[in-house]
Amino acid sequence: MTITRSEAEALDQEDALAPFRERFVLDDGGRIYADGNSLGRLPRQTATRAEELMRAWGDKLVSGWHDWVELPARVGDLLGRLLGAHDDEVLVCDSTTVNLYKLAHAALDMRPGAIATDAGNFPTDRYVLEGVAARRGVELRLFETDDVEGPTVEDVRRVCADGRVALICLSHVAFRSGALADMAAITARARDAGALVIWDLGHSAGAVPVALHDAGAELAVGCTYKYLNAGPGAPGFLYARRELQSRLRSPIQGWFGQRDQFAMGPHYEPAEGIERFHAGTPPVLGLVSVEAGVELVLEAGMDSIRRKSEALTDLTIVLADERLASLGFRVASPRDRERRGGHVALAHPESWRICRALIERADVVPDFRPPDVVRLGFSPLYSRFADVWDAVDRLADLVGRGEQELVDATPLRVT
Amino acid sequence: MTITRSEAEALDQEDALAPFRERFVLDDGGRIYADGNSLGRLPRQTATRAEELMRAWGDKLVSGWHDWVELPARVGDLLGRLLGAHDDEVLVCDSTTVNLYKLAHAALDMRPGAIATDAGNFPTDRYVLEGVAARRGVELRLFETDDVEGPTVEDVRRVCADGRVALICLSHVAFRSGALADMAAITARARDAGALVIWDLGHSAGAVPVALHDAGAELAVGCTYKYLNAGPGAPGFLYARRELQSRLRSPIQGWFGQRDQFAMGPHYEPAEGIERFHAGTPPVLGLVSVEAGVELVLEAGMDSIRRKSEALTDLTIVLADERLASLGFRVASPRDRERRGGHVALAHPESWRICRALIERADVVPDFRPPDVVRLGFSPLYSRFADVWDAVDRLADLVGRGEQELVDATPLRVT
Repeated sequence: MTITRSEAEALDQEDALAPFRERFVLDDGGRIYADGNSLGRLPRQTATRAEELMRAWGDKLVSGWHDWVELPARVGDLLGRLLGAHDDEVLVCDSTTVNLYKLAHAALDMRPGAIATDAGNFPTDRYVLEGVAARRGVELRLFETDDVEGPTVEDVRRVCADGRVALICLSHVAFRSGALADMAAITARARDAGALVIWDLGHSAGAVPVALHDAGAELAVGCTYKYLNAGPGAPGFLYARRELQSRLRSPIQGWFGQRDQFAMGPHYEPAEGIERFHAGTPPVLGLVSVEAGVELVLEAGMDSIRRKSEALTDLTIVLADERLASLGFRVASPRDRERRGGHVALAHPESWRICRALIERADVVPDFRPPDVVRLGFSPLYSRFADVWDAVDRLADLVGRGEQELVDATPLRVT
Repeated sequence: MTITRSEAEALDQEDALAPFRERFVLDDGGRIYADGNSLGRLPRQTATRAEELMRAWGDKLVSGWHDWVELPARVGDLLGRLLGAHDDEVLVCDSTTVNLYKLAHAALDMRPGAIATDAGNFPTDRYVLEGVAARRGVELRLFETDDVEGPTVEDVRRVCADGRVALICLSHVAFRSGALADMAAITARARDAGALVIWDLGHSAGAVPVALHDAGAELAVGCTYKYLNAGPGAPGFLYARRELQSRLRSPIQGWFGQRDQFAMGPHYEPAEGIERFHAGTPPVLGLVSVEAGVELVLEAGMDSIRRKSEALTDLTIVLADERLASLGFRVASPRDRERRGGHVALAHPESWRICRALIERADVVPDFRPPDVVRLGFSPLYSRFADVWDAVDRLADLVGRGEQELVDATPLRVT
């Protein structure tokens, strides 16, 4: 073995983020959780905040809204610090899906034309755009990319070559391979071709450094229940660069996006700034969880998180080469750590059954992504190097013994 | 006095729903809460459920989704029992605003034409429809109704007379006056004129009996944080009658509305039934609160709730006539209890300052609705007849002494 379990344990001893593990609820009986990129763990402070929120609701009743009404923008500003956005550029609201829908229509109202996205983009992104394109009677151009390396500047140049594309939607970190796109270069290339980019930050917020302003990014959406640990179905977010905001209008004209909401006037006039992207009444319980989760990530620091994340994924790949390649696994994530997000994809023809078997027989929780990927997402705030070692070890033993043949075929539903 | 405080207390003694008051958190130090139609109180069982959900998240992590994924439809079915809908006709998701947006586009895709709503309808309904109409290039017809009596069959006949209206949106209970619309007669009249009706049940779900199927209703939306006590910003719901579902498509094509979601296939194909109206990942925390709130209302029984609600609003009006009319108040709700929802509107030229003064100086929480309404919403599950008596008594004393002149003019933001 290149790296022994003792050496993995030694890495945990030296890990500056190790104390953060105790900031999470760890009541799952020793399972190895490699699915923090699907649903992050519960931070202890989130459980406390939720209780406080319940008390505030019970005690303050409707007057609680004096504070709660500020949450979407306040938590948006907090999250904006993590994403390299300025104040008043990020709003926490609705779901990623609804937010992408709003920004896609708003962008195309401002600059009409075709839409492009990669055929391997996350399903909800493709489905939303398919619907937006159909409704507007414009083309949706699905372009192919390298399965492992994800969308490149050259891909974007090609898809925009005829000058008809007005809007591109790309995931900053690909949900399957974990490929990290070059946000600055792609945004610049798209701008040269006359297209806006909506970045989906679902797999990057809290996992990799994001510098929206420095990268010149104009629009973005994302979710908070992965590396931001805000809980199942917690609200999504959206970002719109300040200079664009006055020209963008949400297609969903809700009362919280109205300029003078409680005047309840006869006609809709969008609020100034990012708050024009509100729709209905904000989900207070979810917002409180987002705030607690983002605070924890800010406290740990994005640079430290990224350093540990790179080391965790490096270790996963080294061990996969050593123990899993001979069992039919292929590393389906970029080998260059600079080009990789927070998770590692291992392709195998029996990946679906392997995922089931890992959960049921080896107490390791990965997730499956069609057609053939076992995803291992070790979230740096609570994952240990020894967890990576054990997960690969158990995976190798399990597949070595052919135990994946012993599980049933019920579909696994996870998000 | 026609009714003394002792007599009001006697009504509380006889009240079959009185024990339900103890099912709520009542830590607000004796305030009289007359704003349950804006934000309902916290049920004790909701606090417990929220804690359980937190534990489930911490413990089960991503495998919790095996249960959570069923929540929107399961809670929808439960809510459907309260609304006179069948199973698979109600979905708890997104906000009322987003749900109205989805249904409005879906209805107009099926049956193109103009949109009509009353000029006094709730702001978010008007704003959403204004946006939908503008995007589709169709007329939005705002029709006037009697301020107190709300939309009538005759109003609907008139607005549909030229045969151009394809979609009408009306509140079942008017947010300002509390007028209760005749759902069956209006739906039938609209159908005769070739128009669909979307009913907004925000102020009726949990407050008045709703019989969607028996009334022939085809589409509806609503919120859960008022009389269903699901908490600040809890998710909304939508209803689509079974026979229509296959012809309706959501404009927001999200992955949770996809037929075979985790196949993650290349194109969007809507799920069977009501689940096609899903967009993004469901808000689990909010759904658990909706479930707990709806269960409590079902346990109390809608008939009992309605009987008490009628008695509470009757008492409010009797006392207002006696104590408040001479102080410049006018009852701006229907006097016929059959035509009235769960709250009473009292119009007064100084209503805004009066609301502030009531909260700050008399420990009574009403709300203000422009231009001139003090709303008193005594939610039957936790309000007492003595509360009504005390609220009117304090209101009469306060205005009698002109104390509304003593408060400042900061706008009150409530939902």
